[in-house]
Amino acid sequence: MELAEIGLVGLGVMGSNLALNIAEHGHRIAVWNRELPRLPEFIRDAGDLAQHIIPTETIEQLIAAIKPPRAVILMIPAGAAVDEQIGILKPLLGEGGLIIDAGNSDFRDTVRRVKELEGSGVTLVGMGVSGGEEGARHGPSMMAGGERSAFARIERIIMDIAARTKDGEPCAAWLGPDGAGHFVKTIHNGIEYADMQMIAEIYGAFRDGAGLKPAETAEIFKDWNTRELDSYLIEITARVLSAVDKETEKPIVDIILDRAGQKGTGLWSAVEAERLGRPASVIEAAVGARVLSSLKDEREAAEKAYGLGKPEAGAFTKNDAQLLEHALLAGKVVAYAQGFAVLAMASRMFDWNLPLPTVARIWRAGCIIRSQFLGTIAAAFEGPKVDNLLMTPAFIDIMKRSHGALREVVARAAQAGLPMPALSSALAYFDSYRQGRGTTDLIQAQRDFFGAHGFERIDQPGAHHGIWGISEMPATPTPGEKA
Amino acid sequence: MELAEIGLVGLGVMGSNLALNIAEHGHRIAVWNRELPRLPEFIRDAGDLAQHIIPTETIEQLIAAIKPPRAVILMIPAGAAVDEQIGILKPLLGEGGLIIDAGNSDFRDTVRRVKELEGSGVTLVGMGVSGGEEGARHGPSMMAGGERSAFARIERIIMDIAARTKDGEPCAAWLGPDGAGHFVKTIHNGIEYADMQMIAEIYGAFRDGAGLKPAETAEIFKDWNTRELDSYLIEITARVLSAVDKETEKPIVDIILDRAGQKGTGLWSAVEAERLGRPASVIEAAVGARVLSSLKDEREAAEKAYGLGKPEAGAFTKNDAQLLEHALLAGKVVAYAQGFAVLAMASRMFDWNLPLPTVARIWRAGCIIRSQFLGTIAAAFEGPKVDNLLMTPAFIDIMKRSHGALREVVARAAQAGLPMPALSSALAYFDSYRQGRGTTDLIQAQRDFFGAHGFERIDQPGAHHGIWGISEMPATPTPGEKA
Repeated sequence: MELAEIGLVGLGVMGSNLALNIAEHGHRIAVWNRELPRLPEFIRDAGDLAQHIIPTETIEQLIAAIKPPRAVILMIPAGAAVDEQIGILKPLLGEGGLIIDAGNSDFRDTVRRVKELEGSGVTLVGMGVSGGEEGARHGPSMMAGGERSAFARIERIIMDIAARTKDGEPCAAWLGPDGAGHFVKTIHNGIEYADMQMIAEIYGAFRDGAGLKPAETAEIFKDWNTRELDSYLIEITARVLSAVDKETEKPIVDIILDRAGQKGTGLWSAVEAERLGRPASVIEAAVGARVLSSLKDEREAAEKAYGLGKPEAGAFTKNDAQLLEHALLAGKVVAYAQGFAVLAMASRMFDWNLPLPTVARIWRAGCIIRSQFLGTIAAAFEGPKVDNLLMTPAFIDIMKRSHGALREVVARAAQAGLPMPALSSALAYFDSYRQGRGTTDLIQAQRDFFGAHGFERIDQPGAHHGIWGISEMPATPTPGEKA
Repeated sequence: MELAEIGLVGLGVMGSNLALNIAEHGHRIAVWNRELPRLPEFIRDAGDLAQHIIPTETIEQLIAAIKPPRAVILMIPAGAAVDEQIGILKPLLGEGGLIIDAGNSDFRDTVRRVKELEGSGVTLVGMGVSGGEEGARHGPSMMAGGERSAFARIERIIMDIAARTKDGEPCAAWLGPDGAGHFVKTIHNGIEYADMQMIAEIYGAFRDGAGLKPAETAEIFKDWNTRELDSYLIEITARVLSAVDKETEKPIVDIILDRAGQKGTGLWSAVEAERLGRPASVIEAAVGARVLSSLKDEREAAEKAYGLGKPEAGAFTKNDAQLLEHALLAGKVVAYAQGFAVLAMASRMFDWNLPLPTVARIWRAGCIIRSQFLGTIAAAFEGPKVDNLLMTPAFIDIMKRSHGALREVVARAAQAGLPMPALSSALAYFDSYRQGRGTTDLIQAQRDFFGAHGFERIDQPGAHHGIWGISEMPATPTPGEKA
């Protein structure tokens, strides 16, 4: 029997589809799953592709079925399961062994695992895989981190199965050492949250502000998909808004409970951005919105208790489609500027030398956030190096054309009671970023007043302290009483 | 020589002032500092109080100078230094030893340290101390965590030196086990950031929207300090806005560089809130604003590159003082509702049983965020238990009176280009919280479409999937191409 080129552990939705994708490209693959009954089911569903697949019933059989030097993909739940599987595979793989963790692992765990494997003869590549079930099956975007030479060993398979842009470019790349790939995937997921939240806020403007039915709103999104907002998420928004529930014959969104779930990666990306000192407020707003949605009972009780009624009808009309389109575009610019600023900071902090143009390029297909917009970002990076995407000519152009719409939408929503946490945070970030003279002079004055933290002056270097009229303060103020 | 009741390590600004405070209340205290030259300086500055102080030159002398069972306060930098000092003190203190870490330690480190000391005979109390230099000297607010019996040993000293409310109540309390005290202090600092940021945004409305001079704005804040916004931060805002720089004779805020520093506790609180699944968006906005302020060069370059000019003059006038007052009040309600929601979640998550009314009460004096408003919060907790302060009668009343002002201010600021990250996030949170039917039905539909994550229905229990017209999709879509 011909040995396999590669192995895969974990035949859940993602693992199964990835395995079929690999097989479909003519690469022989050995597979194993902890729950054995899954195996015959998987082989049966594989149909003709089973000829390229070697099912195995033990991890030892899996290893024996792979041609050395052996590479094994893990598509299992992040966390302890991955540590466990690495522990099992390490002695079995031996010198030259390669493990590819293709799950949504925390990049810090990947960094740790790479370090722990040093000197063992076994190498780890941490690879983020985006595109969901369909992406895994027909072409995901893949973001790999680890030793360059380790990635080179699986590069051919990865490039074969990757999503491709219209010009045929594969959407997969080696991005840097250890946790670089998983980190980029985490930020991808955060940006995904931000994109989805801004779309939901615009949907709210149509539904609650303009009183449009889902089918009418679907037409508008379908039209937007032909211009600068051309993207997978806009496309599927039009689709889901067009879908009808068979049981009730109502638009399906109207019978879906507004209680969003989350797997946590959006939250992680918000936390990591904070820890890196580059908070991504639009992502934070998206995470916050999902959290509040989960408190459905509290929201219903609050609506009753406040008795302020529904958002003002007429705040928007269907004639505001172009206004809302440009507001969403402006919001998107800010969300991505924030996301890439986080990537740039992580690159510096962890010494990864992340190729940001490559990140933008491999996100153009296969992943959930795929869009024409990412092509603009990739091109923007070809220009002179900037600290923030907001400073690239392409985005200065978009923002100058669209910031007015974002202002108008945020202002109307504020007056009408339509919640827009993501879009309003995008506007606030833009207005803060382009404000040469901010208001933190006051904050510095206060901090010096109560904590003697010192401030800088606009006219001389060095740290200074204010003389805050201490003579006005009583010599020995009563403890705790305001001086 | 009479032995000391307690010892203190670390004669920096906070430690020195705390030691003098303790001495002033007649409690004999032994002190030690790693940098020995500090000691005679400290004793000299202590003046008459030196009679209650035993300076020691080695840690062994410090221990010997304290009456057993011995308690030692640490007022040293958080992190490794604390672990080191605990390591040194443990064997010297022996059975019955008590260490009080009074620095800004990460509560997770405190939890770890408490666990590590189990069985050693030495106990740790983690205590947050707020109020800055002045608070430490004349009456801080103190938030203690650890074994109740351990706190009881130092309770008399703590209550003696604590800040007091106008009614004489001491602003210090034992709040729960291990990290509870340090966690509450962290959230205090986050709320402090939020309070300061919202004040800065309002200052911006006066300065850039209305063109007021600092002295004029000072008068307005001074007036606000006589009503519902009566607080230390509002009071010192009036003071710093009135202060004049001796060198240039300009208002001091005008010569202070708008580049804010941060010690990190605001950022920590944002991270912890996220990790607990209760993101505090107003705190996040405050942290984000400080980060952007640190990027002064980028902001100046962006202002040039965008050429959009300064915010619109006339967006606000001095006649909008009442409007801005109520907007700030509404923002404050939301910021505190978020902060207390984080405390409530932490209490559940870590099994602390945090006494939230007590937290509000001990923040009424001595700490940076001290205010009349906290009295309202403390009283609000006396009523029926609620999930969120936004649901207490007192705050429903304030919000109903003030949300309109917050809307108007956020809307005008959005149109005029005045950045208001904190106030706009507060409004978005409020509008999301009181919205019984949100827009995450769309997000759930999208998540099910691309990831088969499932959604709940409004009309039946269980997890459901949509049938998204899969028959419309090509049987084998070109890899990566949109289906």
